[in-house]
Amino acid sequence: MSPEIFSRRLNAYQELINLSLLEIVKGLEPNYLYNPIRYVLSGQGKRLRPALVFVTADGFGVDENRTLPAAMAVEILHNFSLVHDDIMDNDDFRHGKQTVHQRWDISTAILAGDGIFCLAYDQLNRLDGLTSSYLKIFSNSTIRLCEGQALDKDFESRQKVSLDEYLEMVSLKTGTLLSLCCKLGGILGGASDHQINSLGEFGLQLGKAFQIQDDILEIYSNVKDMGKSLGSDILTDKKTFLTIKAAEMNPSEWYSFKKGLKDYSLIESRLKMRNYFEIQKILEDARLALRSLSDDSLLILNELPKKVQHNLTSFLEFLMQRKN
Amino acid sequence: MSPEIFSRRLNAYQELINLSLLEIVKGLEPNYLYNPIRYVLSGQGKRLRPALVFVTADGFGVDENRTLPAAMAVEILHNFSLVHDDIMDNDDFRHGKQTVHQRWDISTAILAGDGIFCLAYDQLNRLDGLTSSYLKIFSNSTIRLCEGQALDKDFESRQKVSLDEYLEMVSLKTGTLLSLCCKLGGILGGASDHQINSLGEFGLQLGKAFQIQDDILEIYSNVKDMGKSLGSDILTDKKTFLTIKAAEMNPSEWYSFKKGLKDYSLIESRLKMRNYFEIQKILEDARLALRSLSDDSLLILNELPKKVQHNLTSFLEFLMQRKN
Repeated sequence: MSPEIFSRRLNAYQELINLSLLEIVKGLEPNYLYNPIRYVLSGQGKRLRPALVFVTADGFGVDENRTLPAAMAVEILHNFSLVHDDIMDNDDFRHGKQTVHQRWDISTAILAGDGIFCLAYDQLNRLDGLTSSYLKIFSNSTIRLCEGQALDKDFESRQKVSLDEYLEMVSLKTGTLLSLCCKLGGILGGASDHQINSLGEFGLQLGKAFQIQDDILEIYSNVKDMGKSLGSDILTDKKTFLTIKAAEMNPSEWYSFKKGLKDYSLIESRLKMRNYFEIQKILEDARLALRSLSDDSLLILNELPKKVQHNLTSFLEFLMQRKN
Repeated sequence: MSPEIFSRRLNAYQELINLSLLEIVKGLEPNYLYNPIRYVLSGQGKRLRPALVFVTADGFGVDENRTLPAAMAVEILHNFSLVHDDIMDNDDFRHGKQTVHQRWDISTAILAGDGIFCLAYDQLNRLDGLTSSYLKIFSNSTIRLCEGQALDKDFESRQKVSLDEYLEMVSLKTGTLLSLCCKLGGILGGASDHQINSLGEFGLQLGKAFQIQDDILEIYSNVKDMGKSLGSDILTDKKTFLTIKAAEMNPSEWYSFKKGLKDYSLIESRLKMRNYFEIQKILEDARLALRSLSDDSLLILNELPKKVQHNLTSFLEFLMQRKN
């Protein structure tokens, strides 16, 4: 499928999800709970996760109506984690909008996140032919997501984090949800246990690739392309593939470079970091890791039905060319 | 059943739940997530909610092993809401222990609460013969719980709250979980839809009675009998049956009385409030409401099997004689 046609398909999924998200919370009260929830669910997310459920299920010939509740459940679960993570990470903006705890307060944001989490299960329960397979996979993913966030928080207070530890965290925090998307699509399509495992493995690799790409974009994208406050991660000592690699390669040089950044603005710091990562060939390493993860994930698809392979390859290619 | 024998039975359930709670999180990592979760689940709660699942299911002849996952799921869900509510209400102590956000910090407590929520579903998924009935009832209860907390928070910022509004909030915040306990017990026992509705209605009334009793104990129990910081609710303008009734009966007198309390210590304030509530016959009103709710709830039991009636009556009587 040409990238343009695939991209149009993703836009159609995005529109369907946006409309359905507004629909499920329309007119609900009390406003103390549902106003912030409506605010979150009307955000300008790319809706990549539900799109991944749709394209996987479509690969098995499942129609959109049957897939919709599963796609909604994942997107809602993702939004729950964003609301709570934004409090924990003290982030002020998300997709160009104030975060809930900034717009309201921490209590409101905690409760809105909880409510959104409840709505995710509510959607899952709407699945036609709901079995315990769906629930076990979904509930297992929710706890893995929390474990990933726990590692991420834990890393903040540690000076040294290895690349392996980082990828383990990313696998939990980002990979889990993409893996869930693929597995749900597979279960909907009546995939075998072996196929479901392969789909899950593909999602995990895709998640790692997605995060490394995010780490690169954080430094290399145009400010206007990223919806969130850029560079905040660096300043708060958040670990990324690039910074961990830099610390591993040449610790003393890296720490003294980082120290020197304190006197520069955010924009200047980003330019200086680009320069550092290029000279040290760290950007090249990150791009190689990205390529290798994306190649690995395509190999996993080999045993899946042709249409699934085709859809997921298109999805991966679409992700890999994103600019934000 | 004599109150002593029934009380011993509840102790046995409590012990089983305490052991099972420790078991499910033993040795799990990362510690950033699981240490606070272990801390919460090893708390000294009375485990009344799982006991209610056990006694209801037992009334239908269901054995403890089959009931355990459902009982665990409700207790864990309850603990999730406590951890997050304690942050929102800025409470420092719970069952005589520091709250999670006090002992660690707000981020850790948000994530611990989220993790606990995930574990509730994990338990539910272990139910033998899990059907979508369980899930729909469980997931519906989780969102009702959030709605109740939202109303509670909303009331804090309002000067005037009617008794009806208060009871609606209590019904959501406290009644929902007790109602869920009874309904889960009923589904486990193969109860008809009509019976499940009655069980749910009983739980709702019981929840309201339980909260009004809590409101009374907050002012009338010995300080040592209550595990949490006493009187904090009054000072933060939290609404209770007694304070709302006082405001409804004689607003100007009540507001000037409340204003006068500012110069007194917490202990002195409690004694003065006792005096006020007694003279104005507000305590009497609260006790009448309690009696009427408890009578109503017993009437609802009429159409249920004898053993269910017997068990739930014992449970209600046990609750009504509690001192903390």
